[in-house]
This record gives sequence, C-alpha cells and structure tokens, in this order.
Amino acid sequence: VIIETINQIEPSQQKRSQDRGVLFGDGFFTTGIIEAGRVKHLALHLNRLEESVAHFNFDGFNASELNAEISTIAARIAQATFRITVSRVQSPRGYQVSPDQSCKISILLTPWLAAPAQHCHAFFAQTPISVNPALAGFKHLNRLDSVLAASECQSAEQEAIMTAGEQVICGSKSNLFVYHQQSWITPRLDQAGIRGLTRHRLIEAARLAGINIVEGTVTKNMLESCQAAFLTNSILGIWPISHIGNISLDTQICHDLQSQLNFLR
Amino acid sequence: VIIETINQIEPSQQKRSQDRGVLFGDGFFTTGIIEAGRVKHLALHLNRLEESVAHFNFDGFNASELNAEISTIAARIAQATFRITVSRVQSPRGYQVSPDQSCKISILLTPWLAAPAQHCHAFFAQTPISVNPALAGFKHLNRLDSVLAASECQSAEQEAIMTAGEQVICGSKSNLFVYHQQSWITPRLDQAGIRGLTRHRLIEAARLAGINIVEGTVTKNMLESCQAAFLTNSILGIWPISHIGNISLDTQICHDLQSQLNFLR
Repeated sequence: VIIETINQIEPSQQKRSQDRGVLFGDGFFTTGIIEAGRVKHLALHLNRLEESVAHFNFDGFNASELNAEISTIAARIAQATFRITVSRVQSPRGYQVSPDQSCKISILLTPWLAAPAQHCHAFFAQTPISVNPALAGFKHLNRLDSVLAASECQSAEQEAIMTAGEQVICGSKSNLFVYHQQSWITPRLDQAGIRGLTRHRLIEAARLAGINIVEGTVTKNMLESCQAAFLTNSILGIWPISHIGNISLDTQICHDLQSQLNFLR
Repeated sequence: VIIETINQIEPSQQKRSQDRGVLFGDGFFTTGIIEAGRVKHLALHLNRLEESVAHFNFDGFNASELNAEISTIAARIAQATFRITVSRVQSPRGYQVSPDQSCKISILLTPWLAAPAQHCHAFFAQTPISVNPALAGFKHLNRLDSVLAASECQSAEQEAIMTAGEQVICGSKSNLFVYHQQSWITPRLDQAGIRGLTRHRLIEAARLAGINIVEGTVTKNMLESCQAAFLTNSILGIWPISHIGNISLDTQICHDLQSQLNFLR
C-alpha cells in the first residue's frame, strides 16, 4: 500500500491545487479510438466535453488547445484506445467550487484490444444504477455503480444490464437498443445512464436511412420478451446480444441493421 | 489549462497503475480533525474505512500501517483538518476490477478554520441527491451531487438540504436531525446519503442519556413544520438551524440537547 501525505498546513503548500476529480468525482470524460493517425469522431468528443463544461460550470477548458494536442499525439499512432478526463482543480478544501478553480485535462492512451466476442451474453446486474436527473446523460466521473456492475461479469463476453427498479437503462459500459414489437427502442436517459456518442451516431444513421429509433421506457419484461437487442459503445460499435440470462435472442436482426446502415464504430 | 498525457502504448508504461479514484470515483474517504497532537476519534475513522474496504472489495488496505502513519503526523500538529482518501489503482483499463488491484491512501492536511456561523440558514437544494441502495451510507468518492448542491450556497452560514422527491436525506456536507412532535428523528440512509461519524456518535450519546433518536422517513413538510433541527459533521459538531428558507426555528432546543449530552465535535 502506498501512503502519500499532502500537508497544506505548510505555508508553501497552502495554495497547492487539489484534483477534485479524485476528491469528489468532480469531472467528466470521453473514451474513443485512434485509427491510422486520427482520432475518430473527434468533433463529437470535443462537443460532448464542452456540453459537460457548460453543465457543470467548469472554468478554463480550451477545446482548440485539446484538439491540437490530441491530434498531434494521434498522428504517430496506428491504432489505440484513448480516454480524455477533465477534472476540476482548486486549493480551498470542501465541496464548494472556489473562484480559483481551473481545469486539468488528462489524456490516457491504451493499446488497442480486439473485441472480446462476437455476441454478448447479457444479464441483469444485482447492482442498481445511480439515479439523479441532474447528472443523468453526462459521462461524469461518478461511476462506482458501473464499477460494481462490471465486477459482476464473469467473462469478457458478458455484460451487466443496469436497472432502476423495473426500468432498464444501459449496460455497465454500453448503451442498449431493443427490437420490440417490430420497432427499435432505446432507454430514455433523463434519470440515469450516459448518452453515448455511438448511441447518438446510430440513432442519426438510422434516421437518415428512414428507420425510427424511439427513446422511451424499456422494462425488464420488454427486454426478456424482445426479438433482438444490442449494445453500443465507441470501442465495440454494435454488439449483438445472443442471450439475456437463459433466454436466446435472434442476433441476425442486429447484423441486418448493421449492414443496412453500414454502421462501423 | 494543464494537459497531461499518459501513454500506455509504450511498452515501458503498459504496467503503469492508474488511479481509479479519478477515473471512476472508485474509492472512499473520511474527514476529521487533529487536536493537540492527536487524531480525534481515530478508531471510528479507521473502522469506517475498513467497512468500505469490505463493501467495495478493496485489496491491500492496512489499517495499522495507516494508524501508525497518521498518528506520527498528528503528533506534530496543534490543530488541523484531515482527509484520508483510499482509492483503487490498477493497470488494465475499464470499469472491471483487475486481480492486480492495489490501494492508495492519501492523507490531506488542511489548516483549521473556525466554524462559519453559530446558526445555519438551510434551504432545499435544487440539485437532487443521487439514489443508489448499493452505495448509500458509504462515504465514497461519487460526490458530484454534493458538489452541485454546495455550489447553490451563497454564503458560509448557508447549507443546502438534499432531497429525493419529498424525502429529506441530509445537507450537502452534513447529516440532519429534526425535532418533530416532541421527538428526535434523523433520516434513514438506505437509499442515499452518508452515515456520518458525528451522526453515529450523537445517536449513541443520546441513547446513553436516555434520549431516543429514531431513524426514519423525514419529509420536506416535516422539516418545514418542525420545532427545531440541526446538522452535524466532524468539523462543525452540532450546527443548529435557525431558518429553513423563510421559516424560523427555535435553536434553543438544539443548544439544550448539546448541553444535556455535553456533546463536542
């Protein structure tokens, strides 16, 4: 175990900024891929970060500086996964945001890993999702519910489906789409969950192809009685679900949609 | 703005541990005071951390090592505020906890500040509290709801009261006790909120004095129609509420309880 001490009683340390990302989860992030020297969907990632900057009242974020920095980094990389974390730093203690706040941007690059399995075995997580309409939709740093739900997975082909009571919201690391009574529906995310970029892109791609994907209430019963369902995220793209617990689903409907939309991650 | 990059694509960096405290809020903390060279209520702080270690399945926490370290630090200090943060570190990416997990302990010492005001002006926060029965009670690092609620305060004598629908849970940085229909009640914390150490100590002190404090449901209506109410935390001890919005409360009942129990922070 590492024990580190920061002593702000020392006059020289009193103005030392603390990272409120680790103190309170006071920040947000985005995750995506770099391919052939370019950040895929960089404008969407920057736009998502700017939406969070506005919602959480962060000072000092500079999208064009970040754009330049990550583009330069990406230019040397053939394929990788990236994460950009924006957290708030300040010296005064306590929950309250200080006028001296500034922000810290951390870029984490990790090696590209192939997708874990063609189809997903999904199951309902024991861990409920955290519900808060003031935080819902944003990819903020308060993700302990996803950590606990992901830890329920026994293998890389599994995904834990997170619920709030009878309502299904998302996977631990993914958004959910369900084909139910001949139409596509994805959970509304006004109480919990993250509005994923791949989710957004897929809804747009479907709309352009004349396929309506409705945002609405998805119940556990609907997921267990649907014809098909898939998960999305920036790394996996579309990940068809072959099983919900012991119930088998038709993955061909998902593959057909993917072909029809020519949708890549 | 500071932009830092960690490149785990470099073979030398692939095993570099990341602090999941900032990545996901994967950790927990405790806050208290050092007085006259000693950590007040150190056994309770260590016990709280050990409860979180068990609940969140952290590996490698060593309470006796931490006990020795912080006691040595405290011996040189007349008066200060401390925070101990325990977060999980690992090298593999993603929400899932890796077998290579270990934990990091950060001790933050900040100068002692006098209490902000004798009485508190409380108001109902616009920001709702995050609800999750799997996380409720623990002082984990997912505190963005408290950050937003605390930011609604206009001055140091104010405290934002956090609610889930009609149910009152706590203050942004405090627990709540209400004197309603001749008896004391404090909100049950099985859906949201933090089981504070001062809250625990106060309930115990009252019990020993033959005063029953019930854990139960407190509604907004009950708080607005109560005779008295106060807030607690490790720094403030008992903080009587003189106003809930425009409604005045009798603070003498709180001062009388404090005297009767001889309760100090």
